Amino acid sequence: MELNQIYQSIQDDLNKVKDGIISISEIDFSWLSEQLHYVVRNSGKGVRPALTLLTGKFYQYDLTYLLPMSVSVELMHTATLIHDDAIDNAVVRRNQPTINTLWGKDVAILMGDYLFAKAGEFVADTRTPRVIKLFSQTLAIISSGEISQFRGAYNLEMSRENYFPRIASKTASLFALATESGAILSQAPEQAVAVLRDYGHNLGIAFQIVDDILDFISDEKTLGKPVGSDLTQGTLTLPAMLLLERYPDNNPVSSIFKNRDDTDRKSMETAIEMVRNSTIVDDCYQVASEYRAKACQKLHTLPDNPVRQTLVDLADYVIKRKD
Amino acid sequence: MELNQIYQSIQDDLNKVKDGIISISEIDFSWLSEQLHYVVRNSGKGVRPALTLLTGKFYQYDLTYLLPMSVSVELMHTATLIHDDAIDNAVVRRNQPTINTLWGKDVAILMGDYLFAKAGEFVADTRTPRVIKLFSQTLAIISSGEISQFRGAYNLEMSRENYFPRIASKTASLFALATESGAILSQAPEQAVAVLRDYGHNLGIAFQIVDDILDFISDEKTLGKPVGSDLTQGTLTLPAMLLLERYPDNNPVSSIFKNRDDTDRKSMETAIEMVRNSTIVDDCYQVASEYRAKACQKLHTLPDNPVRQTLVDLADYVIKRKD
Repeated sequence: MELNQIYQSIQDDLNKVKDGIISISEIDFSWLSEQLHYVVRNSGKGVRPALTLLTGKFYQYDLTYLLPMSVSVELMHTATLIHDDAIDNAVVRRNQPTINTLWGKDVAILMGDYLFAKAGEFVADTRTPRVIKLFSQTLAIISSGEISQFRGAYNLEMSRENYFPRIASKTASLFALATESGAILSQAPEQAVAVLRDYGHNLGIAFQIVDDILDFISDEKTLGKPVGSDLTQGTLTLPAMLLLERYPDNNPVSSIFKNRDDTDRKSMETAIEMVRNSTIVDDCYQVASEYRAKACQKLHTLPDNPVRQTLVDLADYVIKRKD
Repeated sequence: MELNQIYQSIQDDLNKVKDGIISISEIDFSWLSEQLHYVVRNSGKGVRPALTLLTGKFYQYDLTYLLPMSVSVELMHTATLIHDDAIDNAVVRRNQPTINTLWGKDVAILMGDYLFAKAGEFVADTRTPRVIKLFSQTLAIISSGEISQFRGAYNLEMSRENYFPRIASKTASLFALATESGAILSQAPEQAVAVLRDYGHNLGIAFQIVDDILDFISDEKTLGKPVGSDLTQGTLTLPAMLLLERYPDNNPVSSIFKNRDDTDRKSMETAIEMVRNSTIVDDCYQVASEYRAKACQKLHTLPDNPVRQTLVDLADYVIKRKD
């Protein structure tokens, strides 16, 4: 199922979220306004705000709270991407030059800070201390996770024991914030809040594993950024770990990490080829599917309404997506 | 009057604020924990948390709210310093190597983000949407102000029309957050909230002007960072503006800005000498004193209690301080 079909029941509200996001670029300071417009006009798939809206549909669907929350999660996501790209010296994202490429790392730091602040303003508009606290806790988890990833870069010893906590902080925490806040802001009972938080968390893990697979099997145009970016940045993802486990000798990943050389196209191509021509891709999809199943496991305990199926469809999409 | 005398009535609570700040370094992830400890152990004068506590003394002094707020303003301040130092490539602060010097700019970005997040957690603990919104708005003002300062760096055309808005965003906004939140969280009536917010704003302007004077007339040991840092970083402060106005030809500031050369010690020394040997220092203190007076102007409308005098003493200290 395509994303626009999955989003059907919330499409109008998702457009309002987009308007909210774009509104932050409408400020007096013209230079910053142009840059913000650049950032917000080219948004992604909107999975996180969609999650907040969808999970808010089981009880009191109240846009007064759900809209600012949805805007907030998307802005926090954008801010973290800007800081990550600055740290990784990433050149392209969503087929566009990154902020650090266009205006330098220093502007990227300040633009990210500004977006965190705006995200904070929107979450404050929910007037709900519990989700505001969750929002800040999530940002702390994401940034400490990034510090941990930064520290572990180019480390061949990273294992699955590091991988799962890392993608939990990096990705699943924000998915869980999106779904848990949707539940809380629609007055869901505590049991349902827990079910929807777990759905977000497990979906986030599945989403990140698929991201890590696509970094090996997709192409630059579809990804919107170069293939193999994770290896270039010294991040050992699940496919790369499996490659190292299966071919411990003369592994191309070892040489990329040892030389920290992003011009080592030959090793990169070899690594990509080896992953593509092995069962590693299938094995990783298998792991992602297990998390997809875990995500949906307890959805049946929620009120029987069409959104329950939409959450399942979205989980299927997360596994099957190509970008 | 010395700071410890001024702080007397809130010293116990200020110690609790310090404990709260230090508590954020007590985490499992040992590498980050050490770095955080480095950041929080060497705190500054604590003017901002003191302002929250003092302004909270006129009505219902309730530490349940005032403590997390005080911790929050200090953490936000620390986070902005870390990002500013990274952007300015500053080497030393408070007589210690900066985070970017010790661990690089990338770690500084992430550490700052982590501290913003922790500041957000503490402000969420006030459970008061109004101050939470103010907190986020202040962060947006500070970071857009920094972007504006960054854009205006090395620009000799910067005038007083730019200077005052810039120091208002950079410094006065956080002082105003500290005092306004103290008022709100102690259930002050709206008129008193406005009086205390204006006190914070004007005190912040005076504080920054004095900072800008000290950058010319102090010494490295007292300042905790090199003298003339503002000029090195291309920031045109009030003393430098007056110097340019009075000596438009062959001005050392022009050559520092034109060459963007921080090794141009001769021009730097000339600029510092020229400021010291002119009436510029007195003239700048005069402007600072006017803001100090403006800060205290309406304090008499507040309930007659000893803290009223403390706020006046603090304003006097801000003008007379040497570091």
